[in-house]
Amino acid sequence: MTAPPRGVPTDEFRQRTRRAQEMMAHHGLSALLLTSEPEIRYYTGFLTRFWESPTRPWFVVLPCNGDPIAVIPSIGAHLMGQSWVTDIRTWSAPDYGDDGIGLLSDALRQVTPEDGWIGIADQIESHVRMPLADLRRLEHGLLPRVLVGDAAITRQLRLVKSETEIGKIRQAVRIADRAFARVGEIAHVGRPLSEVFRRFQMLCLEEGADWVPYLAGAADAEGYADVISPATDVPLRAGDVLMLDTGLVWDGYFCDFDRNFSLGPPSAEVREAHARMLDATLAGAELARPGATIADLFHAMHRVVNPSGSVMEAGRLGHGLGMQLTEWPSIVPEDHTVLVAGMVLTLEPSVEIGPGKIMVHEENIVIRDHGAEFLSSLQSHEIRVI
Amino acid sequence: MTAPPRGVPTDEFRQRTRRAQEMMAHHGLSALLLTSEPEIRYYTGFLTRFWESPTRPWFVVLPCNGDPIAVIPSIGAHLMGQSWVTDIRTWSAPDYGDDGIGLLSDALRQVTPEDGWIGIADQIESHVRMPLADLRRLEHGLLPRVLVGDAAITRQLRLVKSETEIGKIRQAVRIADRAFARVGEIAHVGRPLSEVFRRFQMLCLEEGADWVPYLAGAADAEGYADVISPATDVPLRAGDVLMLDTGLVWDGYFCDFDRNFSLGPPSAEVREAHARMLDATLAGAELARPGATIADLFHAMHRVVNPSGSVMEAGRLGHGLGMQLTEWPSIVPEDHTVLVAGMVLTLEPSVEIGPGKIMVHEENIVIRDHGAEFLSSLQSHEIRVI
Repeated sequence: MTAPPRGVPTDEFRQRTRRAQEMMAHHGLSALLLTSEPEIRYYTGFLTRFWESPTRPWFVVLPCNGDPIAVIPSIGAHLMGQSWVTDIRTWSAPDYGDDGIGLLSDALRQVTPEDGWIGIADQIESHVRMPLADLRRLEHGLLPRVLVGDAAITRQLRLVKSETEIGKIRQAVRIADRAFARVGEIAHVGRPLSEVFRRFQMLCLEEGADWVPYLAGAADAEGYADVISPATDVPLRAGDVLMLDTGLVWDGYFCDFDRNFSLGPPSAEVREAHARMLDATLAGAELARPGATIADLFHAMHRVVNPSGSVMEAGRLGHGLGMQLTEWPSIVPEDHTVLVAGMVLTLEPSVEIGPGKIMVHEENIVIRDHGAEFLSSLQSHEIRVI
Repeated sequence: MTAPPRGVPTDEFRQRTRRAQEMMAHHGLSALLLTSEPEIRYYTGFLTRFWESPTRPWFVVLPCNGDPIAVIPSIGAHLMGQSWVTDIRTWSAPDYGDDGIGLLSDALRQVTPEDGWIGIADQIESHVRMPLADLRRLEHGLLPRVLVGDAAITRQLRLVKSETEIGKIRQAVRIADRAFARVGEIAHVGRPLSEVFRRFQMLCLEEGADWVPYLAGAADAEGYADVISPATDVPLRAGDVLMLDTGLVWDGYFCDFDRNFSLGPPSAEVREAHARMLDATLAGAELARPGATIADLFHAMHRVVNPSGSVMEAGRLGHGLGMQLTEWPSIVPEDHTVLVAGMVLTLEPSVEIGPGKIMVHEENIVIRDHGAEFLSSLQSHEIRVI
């Protein structure tokens, strides 16, 4: 299986822009102001790990007519110049006096009438990536134009993936699948969990990951206490359940799934918990077809893993996946999003196996016209044994 | 050289909190509201890669008297429970109806009188990590209490590192130093740059990195066009200058420095450029002692690498370093921060070697009473040859 081509065709960026503009017209927005990595990359293709540095803000203005305007630090001009964006305005950042706000304000005024509205992401899962004082200064300077919510336009568009995007997610998933298949090479009784984490990331890279932004996991007897802690130096012990959950990236797209391993023969409780999580996954996948809702998926899985109906610590049973490790929507009972072909989701049931001990399983699927297609290699009911 | 112990003593968190509280009293703030990863970790020690998921907001309230209050998703309760924070209030996130804002508002009201001010980071390099609509709802609900800037209290405290922090940064630097020493094993003519990136990250992990959040670099004849682009699949060629710049993490602290390599014998221009960058680094380090200013450092380096005085694309010649890849301050002529023992900085001169071609060099130093101590192994004037 060869890797898909890197990059996204310019036509696709134009189409995303056109569709956003149709929605902007519908909502009466003169422009969108984009400040975060996934928003900016979605419309421009601007892909860099430089976002790790919090120093500089980056802005893209999407007018309701015409092409995007990038208002960015000059250090990014060369890279942005390779995208389809031609209107690139730069300043030498960081500038303690005016870190791009004057330039941004000019661009927004240029495309927004005095009584116009400018949309900015303001809903759950979003944040505005610029200093709050600068945001307030910008808002004040734009008056009588107002900054309003973006009606979740970008979130709605990103929710349904193109075949190009699905291809990249599938590639990330395959790389992780191959790394998971090799965990027996790096995990054994006596090795500290921190060393297993280190070696697993090396496997992900060796199998083709561009980078490994996310790895979580745990190892303990009869399940684990939580799934977000960093690895400790405690050595693996016989009987431990080892869980590794990775979000690795290929060409800017994530996978996000986990695998559980028993160090030696699993207990009856662990075997049963693993099988139950697989049952829940299958129940979710069975329902996951166009027309069903996210709430349907939640209930189908929840009734398998948690027949008592108590509140779960994780707060959800899966989520969207793509340019970010976790994306809209969340698989919760309050989410009534109707499934559409092209959505990529994680199914992530968890069970409480004993007091303070849980297990979590996760697979990645894409919604097709006929139903769910597994991107990750669906696990058997039997937990893997090392 | 053994690794320093992991973690930060509780006394140090108490001391950070006490010092913040003294500054809050001075500025008339009743509380600080913390929303971002480094802010929250600085006062609590909450260390997790889970921040990669944008879904859930996390809050810590630092009252002007008493201990911090964590207002966080229940999925983080176990990990936060291992910190020195005892007042931990949780909700099952994501909650589409109220994603923690009610709980947060209650906590803030509890510690803030009606005419009180609540500080929130609002300056350059910061952003508020929560949905804008929730921030506006919170502000409205807190009235007549007001959210104001935090007077850069946390930024000021973080600027001067403790010996515990310096030890962790030094450990990250040493790991990267060892990985850079092995670049000859993984970089050779004919190998795609993307594969070099992958293998270099594996080396960083093998040498002891917890993870590798940042790797940038480039390879081209007579310098490179930019330093933030992702790696292409173009194979290395004889005569290329290869640059690798990594921010790897050990126990939550970054290093950030680069190394240049010539594939085969370097040209006279490349040799001269490399030597000039080292001269600039030494000029900066020579001046870097308590009492000097950041502007002094800038001018000392700038006059060596850029005698013509033109505007640089990078916008600065180095920056702070610690819990983030880049931290306050920036080495720019407008920065008049006075150096104090304990500050950790990168010195990062760049030269334009030809039209559209640059080279960048970077070292990490800590300011001591007697002057600069190099954390990274200071390079010789001669560029490394592979």
